[in-house]
Amino acid sequence: MLPKSLVDLIEALGKLPGVGARTAERYAYYLLRADERISTELANAVAIVHSGVRVCPITYALIDSTEEISPLYADPERDRTTIAVVEEPLDIIALEKIKQYHGTYHVLGGAMSPIDGIGPEQLHIPELIARIQKDKVTEVILATNASVEGESTALYIQKQIIDQGVDVAITRLARGIPVGVDLEYADIITLTHALEGRRKL
Amino acid sequence: MLPKSLVDLIEALGKLPGVGARTAERYAYYLLRADERISTELANAVAIVHSGVRVCPITYALIDSTEEISPLYADPERDRTTIAVVEEPLDIIALEKIKQYHGTYHVLGGAMSPIDGIGPEQLHIPELIARIQKDKVTEVILATNASVEGESTALYIQKQIIDQGVDVAITRLARGIPVGVDLEYADIITLTHALEGRRKL
Repeated sequence: MLPKSLVDLIEALGKLPGVGARTAERYAYYLLRADERISTELANAVAIVHSGVRVCPITYALIDSTEEISPLYADPERDRTTIAVVEEPLDIIALEKIKQYHGTYHVLGGAMSPIDGIGPEQLHIPELIARIQKDKVTEVILATNASVEGESTALYIQKQIIDQGVDVAITRLARGIPVGVDLEYADIITLTHALEGRRKL
Repeated sequence: MLPKSLVDLIEALGKLPGVGARTAERYAYYLLRADERISTELANAVAIVHSGVRVCPITYALIDSTEEISPLYADPERDRTTIAVVEEPLDIIALEKIKQYHGTYHVLGGAMSPIDGIGPEQLHIPELIARIQKDKVTEVILATNASVEGESTALYIQKQIIDQGVDVAITRLARGIPVGVDLEYADIITLTHALEGRRKL
């Protein structure tokens, strides 16, 4: 019913996360109708992304393949004695956007999830422990997600650090009511965290 | 903050319809982490889609660049005296899926929309009128969308056909309550159509 090259494109686009048949059709049809420059740019970008990106051997952030280590670690302005521990490389963008954090990062590469077969040995936890000692770290901010997996990963790392007997502050991002959300719409767990973490004015 | 090749990919993916920055990031990160075969397939499919697809000079359906005319027109099993007029090439897929229609198609290439500067002269309407006479068409099914643009395009085409003075039945797809939708949830326009189009049992 459809040209083979269009069917192939719909199939390839349908492999993107959360993209069903209808969405893939819409994307493919857009690429077909749009200026050829747009599809050429996309084809090139997809083709070179694997070779253009590598993983920083210290922080496990994604870096340009021309770089040796992450600029967010190499930069002398960044405070290496503070490490924000995140699950995925893209979490770094979220934290960098607020422009308030001047420490370094450590990407775990996911969170512990027994159901998906991801245990602590699949995550960059030993490398984190080694960094804490090597860089004389004074604070580790456990910025894993507020999911069951993120929380248990944070707990596990906390225990690992304590077991090392090193003197380092271990913190976790504050949980509470997000800005702009009315009290009545906050869920019970968030509200519990907000109450527990209440601050003196 | 991110490797240049990843930023470029996020930007290119962000041009797809309805894809915002966060979704583009998710797609790009998926392509980076997935097997290189998946991104290679996508890159190739995007790269060749323009050269692999052409437009049928009779029905304006999308066809393989190796074909001369649409198989849905060339096939002797298809009844050329019936034409379903649709807005976009992908609408053909929807109608072909029901496997009940054995006529041919005519793709308009959109619908009349003064606000977007699309008038009848941008659509393949003269070619439709010519086909009606050439193929001795007995029925034209106006299968444009149930939007304001689709309805006014259907009305315009109806008038054009009548002006030709040819003896051809002009029909429109039935409007009514979709299967599985409760009466109480049907909108007022759909319900009006359903009442007007009620059938004897």
